[in-house]
Amino acid sequence: MARLDEQAHGVYPISATPFTDAGGIDWESADQLTDFYLTCGVHGLTLLGMMGEAQKLTLDEAAAFAARVIRRVDARVPVVVGVSAGGMAPMAELTARVMDAGAAGVLVAPPTGLRTDDQIFDYFRGVVETLGPEVPVIYQDYPPTTSVFLSATLFLRMVRAYGSMVMLKLEDCPGLDKLTRIRADSARDGLRRVSVLVGNGGLYFPQFLERGADGAMTGFAFPDMLVQVYERFGAGDREGAEDLFDAYLPLVIYEQQPGYGLAVRKEILRRRGAIRSAATRAPGPRLRPADAVEIDRLIGRLERRLGLPGLHTGS
Amino acid sequence: MARLDEQAHGVYPISATPFTDAGGIDWESADQLTDFYLTCGVHGLTLLGMMGEAQKLTLDEAAAFAARVIRRVDARVPVVVGVSAGGMAPMAELTARVMDAGAAGVLVAPPTGLRTDDQIFDYFRGVVETLGPEVPVIYQDYPPTTSVFLSATLFLRMVRAYGSMVMLKLEDCPGLDKLTRIRADSARDGLRRVSVLVGNGGLYFPQFLERGADGAMTGFAFPDMLVQVYERFGAGDREGAEDLFDAYLPLVIYEQQPGYGLAVRKEILRRRGAIRSAATRAPGPRLRPADAVEIDRLIGRLERRLGLPGLHTGS
Amino acid sequence: MARLDEQAHGVYPISATPFTDAGGIDWESADQLTDFYLTCGVHGLTLLGMMGEAQKLTLDEAAAFAARVIRRVDARVPVVVGVSAGGMAPMAELTARVMDAGAAGVLVAPPTGLRTDDQIFDYFRGVVETLGPEVPVIYQDYPPTTSVFLSATLFLRMVRAYGSMVMLKLEDCPGLDKLTRIRADSARDGLRRVSVLVGNGGLYFPQFLERGADGAMTGFAFPDMLVQVYERFGAGDREGAEDLFDAYLPLVIYEQQPGYGLAVRKEILRRRGAIRSAATRAPGPRLRPADAVEIDRLIGRLERRLGLPGLHTGS
Amino acid sequence: MARLDEQAHGVYPISATPFTDAGGIDWESADQLTDFYLTCGVHGLTLLGMMGEAQKLTLDEAAAFAARVIRRVDARVPVVVGVSAGGMAPMAELTARVMDAGAAGVLVAPPTGLRTDDQIFDYFRGVVETLGPEVPVIYQDYPPTTSVFLSATLFLRMVRAYGSMVMLKLEDCPGLDKLTRIRADSARDGLRRVSVLVGNGGLYFPQFLERGADGAMTGFAFPDMLVQVYERFGAGDREGAEDLFDAYLPLVIYEQQPGYGLAVRKEILRRRGAIRSAATRAPGPRLRPADAVEIDRLIGRLERRLGLPGLHTGS
Repeated sequence: MARLDEQAHGVYPISATPFTDAGGIDWESADQLTDFYLTCGVHGLTLLGMMGEAQKLTLDEAAAFAARVIRRVDARVPVVVGVSAGGMAPMAELTARVMDAGAAGVLVAPPTGLRTDDQIFDYFRGVVETLGPEVPVIYQDYPPTTSVFLSATLFLRMVRAYGSMVMLKLEDCPGLDKLTRIRADSARDGLRRVSVLVGNGGLYFPQFLERGADGAMTGFAFPDMLVQVYERFGAGDREGAEDLFDAYLPLVIYEQQPGYGLAVRKEILRRRGAIRSAATRAPGPRLRPADAVEIDRLIGRLERRLGLPGLHTGS
Repeated sequence: MARLDEQAHGVYPISATPFTDAGGIDWESADQLTDFYLTCGVHGLTLLGMMGEAQKLTLDEAAAFAARVIRRVDARVPVVVGVSAGGMAPMAELTARVMDAGAAGVLVAPPTGLRTDDQIFDYFRGVVETLGPEVPVIYQDYPPTTSVFLSATLFLRMVRAYGSMVMLKLEDCPGLDKLTRIRADSARDGLRRVSVLVGNGGLYFPQFLERGADGAMTGFAFPDMLVQVYERFGAGDREGAEDLFDAYLPLVIYEQQPGYGLAVRKEILRRRGAIRSAATRAPGPRLRPADAVEIDRLIGRLERRLGLPGLHTGS
Repeated sequence: MARLDEQAHGVYPISATPFTDAGGIDWESADQLTDFYLTCGVHGLTLLGMMGEAQKLTLDEAAAFAARVIRRVDARVPVVVGVSAGGMAPMAELTARVMDAGAAGVLVAPPTGLRTDDQIFDYFRGVVETLGPEVPVIYQDYPPTTSVFLSATLFLRMVRAYGSMVMLKLEDCPGLDKLTRIRADSARDGLRRVSVLVGNGGLYFPQFLERGADGAMTGFAFPDMLVQVYERFGAGDREGAEDLFDAYLPLVIYEQQPGYGLAVRKEILRRRGAIRSAATRAPGPRLRPADAVEIDRLIGRLERRLGLPGLHTGS
Repeated sequence: MARLDEQAHGVYPISATPFTDAGGIDWESADQLTDFYLTCGVHGLTLLGMMGEAQKLTLDEAAAFAARVIRRVDARVPVVVGVSAGGMAPMAELTARVMDAGAAGVLVAPPTGLRTDDQIFDYFRGVVETLGPEVPVIYQDYPPTTSVFLSATLFLRMVRAYGSMVMLKLEDCPGLDKLTRIRADSARDGLRRVSVLVGNGGLYFPQFLERGADGAMTGFAFPDMLVQVYERFGAGDREGAEDLFDAYLPLVIYEQQPGYGLAVRKEILRRRGAIRSAATRAPGPRLRPADAVEIDRLIGRLERRLGLPGLHTGS
C-alpha cells in the first residue's frame, strides 16, 4: 500500500475501537464503522489514537484490529495507526505488524515526562531510527495528556533532521500561532512543507484552514461535517464553510469535555448507526442521565438548525 | 457594604485591569470600564482575577485599583476581589484593605503544589482562620493554571466546615457532572446550598444553568450576552437563551484560547469602547496580525447573525 | 503458592530485567540475578516495577520473564509482580498469567492523570473488582513519575473498602509523616494493619523502620545491605543498623538520581556479577564516562569504609 | 557595592527569613543570622529564595529585610536577592529597591507554566530587558517547584544572548550531566564561562565540584561544612572533602525532604543559636514530635562521628 507523505490532506477521522457490552472487540462493528467513515467521504483513517482507547488493548488486539480495518478499507484511503508505547521494543513490534498489514504510516506521541526541547528531539531520533526510514511518522501533539509541549522551532528542527517525519497532528490548544509560525519559518528557511492536520475535535477548524492547515485528524463524531467544511473551504466558499461549522459548534464543544468526550462520541456514533454499542473499556467515562438529555437536546437543536438555508449537509 | 452570601447569583464579570500604553494603571479607563459593566446589567463585579492580571500588580496597586472601582460602583452591585497570594500574611493585608474599601468578599485560589484532598482542605482552613469569619470567601477553581483539582466531595467537606465559604467559582472543565454532584449530594445531606458561578468564558453556560448553576463569573468580553442568557433562562425561555448563546459561541471559543484569551478580551473591550488601550502587562500575550483579522471576521459574522430573528440583544 | 498478606515484611528488591546487548531478554542472567537476590537473604522479590523496565516489554515478554523467575525462586520467597497498564483488560490478562505462574500478588500504580481522592479511590475499586478478591494487591505509590499523590486518609479509606489491598509500597518523598499517620490513624480506628514497604532506594530507611515500616521494596543494587539493616534493627541494634546504612548512603543517593538510577543500578549489578550486561532498553539513560568514574570512586570509598569496625557486612 | 560577575564562587547560603512567634520579621534575629553566616566563612549571601519564604512577604517587607541584611554585611561579601514575581512590574520595583540598597545581583526563577525552550528564552529576554544591563541576573533553576526544565543547550543560548546573566543556580536533580555539558559545550563554542553554584542542599556536592561547579547556593543549615568541603577541595584534598561531606550526608538528606526542609532547617538554625525562633509563616510545614526526635538523633550521631580522625570541622 502507498506510504503517507507530506502531501497528505483532508479529514482523517480518529476511529473509535468498538467493543461489545461484554468488553471484547466488536469485529462486526469494526467493519460497519469503517464503512461509515468511508461513506462520510473521509480522505484517510486513523486507528488506535486516544479516541481509539489504544492503551486499553493488548498488542495482539491492537494489531488484529488494525489489520481488520485496513483489509476492509481495501486501499481506498490511507490508514495510519497509533503505535505509541512505553518502550521502543513494543513500538517496533506493533509497527512491524501494522505496516505489514498495509498501514500507510504511524503516529507517535512523546511519552509523559519529556520536558526540554532536547529531550523531545532525542526521543524522536530514537523513534525514527528504530522504525527505519521506510515508516512514515506522524508527530502526535497532545499536551493536555502528555504534558509535553512542542514549539514551532523544535518541530522544524525535527523536520530538518528526520526525513521520515511527514506530518504533524497538531493538537496543542490554541495552536493557531504555532501553525502560523511553522508555515512562515518553514518557507523562510526553505524546508520541505510537511502536512499539518489539526485535532481537538475540530476546534478552530476554519481559522486553522485559513492559516495553512491541510485538514483535520480528530475523533469528532460527525466527520461528514468536517469533510464538507474542508471541501467548501477548498472551493473558496469560506462563509459557507464557517456557517456549517458553526451549526455544529455546540456539539464540537460538547464532545471536547476532557475525559468525557470519548463516551459522548461513542454514544453519538451508536445513535448514528455506526457501531452497535457505546461501551468503553475501563477505566473510562460513563455517561449519566443528564448527559444523555443534553446530547438529545443538542442533536435536536442541530437538526432544526440544519433546516436553515445554506446548511444542508447532504448526510 | 453588604457582604456576599450564599444567595449570590447572576453574572459577575471578571474585570480587566486597564493599563496605559506606558504600563501604569489607567485610572480613567478603570471608571469607564466599571460603567461599561454596569450598563451591561451585571449582577456583581469581580476584580483582580487572572483576567485582571492580579499577579502583575504590587499590593499597593491592587488595593488602590479595587478601592477605585468599588467607589465608582457605589454599592449598586457587590464587588468581590481576588486576594490569592503566596502566603497568608500578604493575603490578609490585601483582604483587610479591600474589605475596608467596601468589597463584598474575596476569591482565593489554591496555590499550585497542593495535591491531596487533605492538603487543599487544610490550606483553606488556614485561609478562613486567617481572614476571619466576617470575610466571605469564594473558592476559585482553576485547574489549568493551578493544577489543583477539587472534587464535589471535597468541596462539600469545606462547605460543612467553613461557614464563611459561600460560593464556588467553578472553572474546572468540563465540570458539568461536578456541579450535578454538588447539588445532589448537598441536598441529600441537608447542607446549606452555596452559590455556584461558572467560569471558562461561559463555556457550557446553558448546560450549567440547567444543572443548577446560579450564574457566571468570567472575563468573557460580552457580559451583556451572558446577562441576557441568564435572564431568558430564568424567565423560562430556554430555547431563546441557547439561541443567543450559540450566536456568540464562536467568540466564546475564540476567547478561550489558553494564554491568549487575555489579549483577545482586552482588544474586544477596547473596540467596544470600554477601555482606551488593550495593553497588557508583561509577561503577557501579544496579538499578531492574523489574530486581529480573525477577531474582525468573528465580530462581523456575529453582527450579521444577530440580524436573524430571535437574537436581538438590545445592546 | 502462598498469597501475599498483611504480614509481609523484610526486603523485597525490585528486580532489574536483564537484557542482552542485542536487546532481548537475557534468560541466563535472569536466573543468575534471581540467585543473587536469594543469596543476599531477601525476604521476597518484586518483578516488573519501574526498575524492571516493565513498560518496555510486551505482555508476552513480561509474562514469560515473571514465569521464569518464579520457577527459579521455587517458592523460597514470595514473588510479586507489577501489572500496571493503560486499561483493565491488559492488566487482567497479565495478572492472570503471573498468578497462574505462581506469583504471590501484584503491584498496581495509579495512572498519570488521576487527581482527586475520589478519582484514585474509584480507580482502585475498578482494579480490585477486575482482579478479584483472590489476588492480593499492592498500592504502588510513586508521585515523581505518576504525579498521583496519596494521602494517609485516602489510603486508609482504601484499606477499609478493599480487602485484597494488603500492602503499600510507599515511595512518596518524604513520606515519613505519611507513614506515622497511617500507623496512628489505623490503630485509632481499629483497622487491619497492612504491610508498608518503603522505596526510594532506601532513603530514610532507618527513620522509616523506627516509624513502623515493615521493610523496603526498592531497586537499590546492594539489597544485602538493606537486609542487614533490617535485621540489625529487628534485633534491637539501632545504632549498628544506622552505621551500616550511613556507610552506603553516598551510593544510595547516587543511585537515586531521577532518570539515571536505572543505568547506575544495572552497572553496579553487572560489576557485582549479578547480570552479564548493563544494557537498558530504549528509551533509557546511558552512562557517560564521568558517571563510571564516580561509581568507581564511590565503591572504592565504600570498601575502605567497610573496613572500619562495626561495618562488616559479611557479603 | 560591587556587582556580581562570572567569577563568583564559593558558598552562598540561602538565608532563612527569621520571624517572631507572632509572625512579624524578627529584625534582631536578622542581624544575628547574618553574623552567623559570616562566621561560617561564607563567600556570599542569598536572600529571599524559597528557603527565605520570599512569597510570603509583601514587597515592602522584602525590600526592608534585604536592606537590613545588606547593611549588616557591610560589603564584606556580595549579597544577592531573589526577585521572582508574577509580573515584570513588581519584579522591577523590588529589584530597584534592593540594588539601591547595595545588592550585588538578583535571582530570577522562571514562572510555573513555561514549557518550551522558546518560552523560557523569551521570558528571560523580558527579564533582562526590564531590569537593564546593569543588574546581574542569576538563573534560578528549580524544577520540583516550577516544573520548568532547563537544558544545557538552552542555558548556553541565554548565556550567548543575555550579557547580564552571569550565574546559574543549578538545582535540577540530578544535574550532574547537565553541568558537564554546560562546561564542555561552552568551552567548545568559546562562550564566556559563567558561574555555576549548585543547590539541592548540597546533594552531590563533591561530584559537582569535580565536574566544574564553582560552589554551592543552598539553605543547608551547616554552611560551615560546605565552606570547608569547598576549601578542602580547592586545596586538592578531595578525600578529606568527601569524608567531611559524607559525615553530614544523613543531615543533608534529612533536610532535603520536599516541603519539610524549611522547618527542619529553621529548627537547626535555632538550635545552633543563629535565630531565636524556628517559626515559619503560613502556609508552611510544622515539625511534629517524631521529627524533633529524628533531628536530635541525627545531630547526636554527627557529633560522635566528627570525633573520628580527619573530620574535625573547627566549628
